[in-house]
Amino acid sequence: MRAERSRFDLDTGVEMREPGLFRAEISPEWCIGAAPNGGYLLAIVLRAFQAALPYRDPITVSCHFFAVPKVGNAEIEVDVLRVGRTLARGEARLIQGSVEQLRVLAALGTIEPTDAPALVGFGDPPAMPPPDECVPTGATTPDGRPSPVRQHLEIRYHPESVGWAHGAPTGIAEVRAWMRLADGSPPDNLLIPLLLDVLPASVYDVGVTGWVPTVELTVHQRARPSTDWLLCSVTCRFAAAGVIEENGEVWDEEGRLIATCRQIALLPKSSKS
Amino acid sequence: MRAERSRFDLDTGVEMREPGLFRAEISPEWCIGAAPNGGYLLAIVLRAFQAALPYRDPITVSCHFFAVPKVGNAEIEVDVLRVGRTLARGEARLIQGSVEQLRVLAALGTIEPTDAPALVGFGDPPAMPPPDECVPTGATTPDGRPSPVRQHLEIRYHPESVGWAHGAPTGIAEVRAWMRLADGSPPDNLLIPLLLDVLPASVYDVGVTGWVPTVELTVHQRARPSTDWLLCSVTCRFAAAGVIEENGEVWDEEGRLIATCRQIALLPKSSKS
Repeated sequence: MRAERSRFDLDTGVEMREPGLFRAEISPEWCIGAAPNGGYLLAIVLRAFQAALPYRDPITVSCHFFAVPKVGNAEIEVDVLRVGRTLARGEARLIQGSVEQLRVLAALGTIEPTDAPALVGFGDPPAMPPPDECVPTGATTPDGRPSPVRQHLEIRYHPESVGWAHGAPTGIAEVRAWMRLADGSPPDNLLIPLLLDVLPASVYDVGVTGWVPTVELTVHQRARPSTDWLLCSVTCRFAAAGVIEENGEVWDEEGRLIATCRQIALLPKSSKS
Repeated sequence: MRAERSRFDLDTGVEMREPGLFRAEISPEWCIGAAPNGGYLLAIVLRAFQAALPYRDPITVSCHFFAVPKVGNAEIEVDVLRVGRTLARGEARLIQGSVEQLRVLAALGTIEPTDAPALVGFGDPPAMPPPDECVPTGATTPDGRPSPVRQHLEIRYHPESVGWAHGAPTGIAEVRAWMRLADGSPPDNLLIPLLLDVLPASVYDVGVTGWVPTVELTVHQRARPSTDWLLCSVTCRFAAAGVIEENGEVWDEEGRLIATCRQIALLPKSSKS
């Protein structure tokens, strides 16, 4: 039965107070440690965009994080910047107390269920065994922090990913995992940023340790997911000047690319770049 | 002699009218056809950020284009959003008449001249013959439009790039070129967005024709360029739902990664995705 609203849908809901002003409740259920997942926060903001703009699919979304929002009340201000026949543009600010925690520039459009990315080069899904041959996660992070988000997502790592979690970093800055909602709901198209941001930092497998706060996350959605299990892959190519870049991809079980993302994050002070 | 200000430096200058409000003159010299290059416009906006924020290097910059700005006067409004010890955050809007043409969210920081990206995986410079074995561009675009920007940049294509310009698309959505300022000035670090945006769309070599307007361009700078010639590479992996994604990289002659970029652009209506 999939008639009820999913937990993810409920926890990303927004309530319109007046045009352009929304109220949301940031749930503790999508935290890693005490910090709400950045992709979960972006999903809340995207719900506000969907309510304020005439289109529903996030074609390109740039999210700049200024601070770490807290569980609890938040307000989201949305400015409609431009509405065209193909795209609608907007800006949103997530505010707690009087502090702006993050700001998003977005272009929403329409992705038809039949739209599938045409391969014009360089694009194959990463090699991955099926979910039942992959490694499930535990209920806490490898360093022992509670991770409520793991109650709500099933995560199955590639057997050769996340060596660092077992004390044996692989030396390759890449994480691959199948992910799906634990309550059996199909993935809605605002789930993508959460999936991409919930994976461990790929640089843990090259010896970086500690928290890697996101400065900016850009998500480009390319298709609507059509299977429950989604293959998520994150890699890091370069670390420099105190920051790392991570590149993510989401594919469905039919081998269709659903989304790409790129983020800039701060290296922990103890790490060498 | 490199004592004078470069043409690029002069043409990207901004004048502060009051704190947070700048005036700029968009020059016809950096146009392709009648349209100012998007990377040139972003460089102007970055000059305003440099004047308004305490740091000079664009660590991550998200530029959303709403329309095509015209040559001539423009105003740039800059909001300082957050100043920290590592990064300063700001937003800028480029306005002509009363029309907002583009909006930028940025994090500026400090990249030391000695900072060089550490390779953590997947990162080699693209294969490329030296500049004198590459193919110079003509003064107009292959479809005959005047291209003033080509007077100010020397561009040397990889011999196997831009087959479409000679009527023989290569079938590979990739363009590689060496580029440097024609007046002999060393590249300043705001030149990068221009270089990345001035290359022809990589999808021309897989049969797409026509103008490919940029919706959003994100640039991540990783090092300061230390050589005049810079190797710029742009590839496209996927086209879907009427948009293409392009990925760019800039390397210097010493094999250091200077910057990466990713953009979303609209496919011409006549093209199949």
